[in-house]
Amino acid sequence: MAKFDWRSKGSVSVAKGFLASGIHCGIKKRKMDASLIYSETPCVSAAVFTTNKAKAWPVLYSMKAIKGKTHKAILCNSGNANCFNGAIGQKTVKESVKKLASQLKIKEKEILVCSTGVIGRTFPWPKFQRGIPKLVNQLSRAGDQDAALGILTTDKLTKELSIEFLFNGKKVRLGAIAKGAGMVHPNMATMLCFITTDLSIKKTLLQSALKEAVSKTFNRIAIDNDMSTNDTVFILSNGLAKNKTIQNKGPEYLKFVEILIEFCKEVSLKLVEDGEGVTRVCDVVVEKAATEKGAEIFARQVANSMLVKTMLTGADPNWGRVIGALGATKQNIHWDKLEIYFDKNLIFSLGKGIDKHLSLVRKTLKKKHFQLRIVLNQGNAKVSFLTSDLTSKYVRINSAYTT
Amino acid sequence: MAKFDWRSKGSVSVAKGFLASGIHCGIKKRKMDASLIYSETPCVSAAVFTTNKAKAWPVLYSMKAIKGKTHKAILCNSGNANCFNGAIGQKTVKESVKKLASQLKIKEKEILVCSTGVIGRTFPWPKFQRGIPKLVNQLSRAGDQDAALGILTTDKLTKELSIEFLFNGKKVRLGAIAKGAGMVHPNMATMLCFITTDLSIKKTLLQSALKEAVSKTFNRIAIDNDMSTNDTVFILSNGLAKNKTIQNKGPEYLKFVEILIEFCKEVSLKLVEDGEGVTRVCDVVVEKAATEKGAEIFARQVANSMLVKTMLTGADPNWGRVIGALGATKQNIHWDKLEIYFDKNLIFSLGKGIDKHLSLVRKTLKKKHFQLRIVLNQGNAKVSFLTSDLTSKYVRINSAYTT
Repeated sequence: MAKFDWRSKGSVSVAKGFLASGIHCGIKKRKMDASLIYSETPCVSAAVFTTNKAKAWPVLYSMKAIKGKTHKAILCNSGNANCFNGAIGQKTVKESVKKLASQLKIKEKEILVCSTGVIGRTFPWPKFQRGIPKLVNQLSRAGDQDAALGILTTDKLTKELSIEFLFNGKKVRLGAIAKGAGMVHPNMATMLCFITTDLSIKKTLLQSALKEAVSKTFNRIAIDNDMSTNDTVFILSNGLAKNKTIQNKGPEYLKFVEILIEFCKEVSLKLVEDGEGVTRVCDVVVEKAATEKGAEIFARQVANSMLVKTMLTGADPNWGRVIGALGATKQNIHWDKLEIYFDKNLIFSLGKGIDKHLSLVRKTLKKKHFQLRIVLNQGNAKVSFLTSDLTSKYVRINSAYTT
Repeated sequence: MAKFDWRSKGSVSVAKGFLASGIHCGIKKRKMDASLIYSETPCVSAAVFTTNKAKAWPVLYSMKAIKGKTHKAILCNSGNANCFNGAIGQKTVKESVKKLASQLKIKEKEILVCSTGVIGRTFPWPKFQRGIPKLVNQLSRAGDQDAALGILTTDKLTKELSIEFLFNGKKVRLGAIAKGAGMVHPNMATMLCFITTDLSIKKTLLQSALKEAVSKTFNRIAIDNDMSTNDTVFILSNGLAKNKTIQNKGPEYLKFVEILIEFCKEVSLKLVEDGEGVTRVCDVVVEKAATEKGAEIFARQVANSMLVKTMLTGADPNWGRVIGALGATKQNIHWDKLEIYFDKNLIFSLGKGIDKHLSLVRKTLKKKHFQLRIVLNQGNAKVSFLTSDLTSKYVRINSAYTT
């Protein structure tokens, strides 16, 4: 597996032909609130959107736009979700796209859009409109850090990642920026992730690769139990790496899927680490399950249990809460075969607790990152699901979000 | 509808022929930790148990015992769930029943049992054994307050309720004690509720009445998103009121179901009000839904949303979180028909927010008890679901529960 560069070599503008920018246009009081990603040549593209029935205007727009053959730009604002704010919200998406197309001298249908922020607020279109030429003027290879800043809401840190790997002897680059913070359940998050690559690949294959990667990474993280109206993952692929175009699901495709999964897993970890009020990340690993589907149901239930999350907060090895969450799925378990570990330390076996490793377990629970391993001994399937502790800080942040 | 007496006239020993007691036997350090309810004459009985696949030993025992024709006693301890603590836990249930039967001079099969507390701890059988004769000696009409205390865990207050009503000119009494506090989802709670009545009714009808009442009350409350291993609702009915025995699902039965629902609703409210860290209770009412089932799915999703709960904490009318939760159910909604109210104040209509009542809404949100009304305008079904705010205190309590 290729090695990842975290922030060291940039993000969405490392792949050939990509530029980026980020600015403050006035949707937020002071912080950056608008970003643009642009490819000098046409890209094939793919996307995964929120499955929430309540969808923001830019999501509804991009769900149609993504069906186009090629794209050249992603436009995003933060600070306003442009969601459930009346028909004017829909109009402002169209106006933004029109304005950007004229500034970039590209077609409207080559543009994808995103928003993130508070639901239900009137979209400050004049401010955003004035920001668009500035975004275009500032496009550069060095603009990716600004772009990473422009999409944040309650995130403390930017999420930027890039990787290089070889495909038929050609150097291929993959870069991403993302935002997360809360509302990360059950599918994706209040999360945006924009991935760019110079790989050459057929559009349908790019879509299936992205879908598989998202299902195994962004759809397996839990900060709270809410699902956003704006979640979007985009990937743009301009082919400038000049590798032999991936045309079928052969070894080249499988290699790309593997890389994309590892890449998205790394982004997911950064999202959970920077989740609202998060101090600890726990990797809930369900092992030796009968099926992957069943393993995921168990992992999701444990990862989203408020009592498990507060157990992590208190660094308290109260495994009874894990048992309670497993049982709540209504799936069959052989309780006598079940083993529970924190990292390598066995805490539950043969239907009851194991006290002898308790001091080691308490040490493990105080680490910033550890595994809660649930070994079912029923088969060979394995699923990993990232969760976080639930802290008073989460409550403080979310009880004062709009006021 | 008959009027309820809240604590004024006792609880599980108001119905004719019932006695109760509660003691400290040493499972907990200082607080009361064991309770007994006893009927001088045989009762028909019914129960609803946790649907969690992980069940405590007393639940497994009582699930069999409840099939018996009549019962005379309910034995309960708090401070230890007697769950996933090895085969010895199962043995102590049997020993407790044996000891109690000999002390009360009744048959073992006339006894039902319950436990609540931490999962996975060795059950301190010698202490509980020594407590049993004391529980029997202290049985009295006035013992119901002690019994209400003996079943509590992190509850701050006892839950005691009684009601009198007429059936064919005969005075019938219904009384209950309950405990709740946390882990109240999706069905019942870490909750116990013991109901006694001197009504005369057939066992199968008592069971169907209880099942219906529980599904509309205890199964429609949310404190956190966890489900306990020990949840139990028992009802004992000794027939000493001498009403004409209810033998079929005629008007008498329907009247009883209606009373039982109102009664359990009142207990449910007390459970949520005293939930862990709770400062506000919100009645999530989904109105004009196409079906009751659909309405319940919407209500449950909103009631359990951590972002809705923290919105309540902050008294912040961020209705976008309600929209997000409704959409997350994947059920169809006509967004343009949807109206959202806090009590009587409209905050969302025709696909967007209504700002003009904002100051009234903020006042409503600061009340200790209010309604969040979600009017779908799709049909005539209505469901009410009680939820609470999620506070830093909840996090503190649950991050330090066993340590």
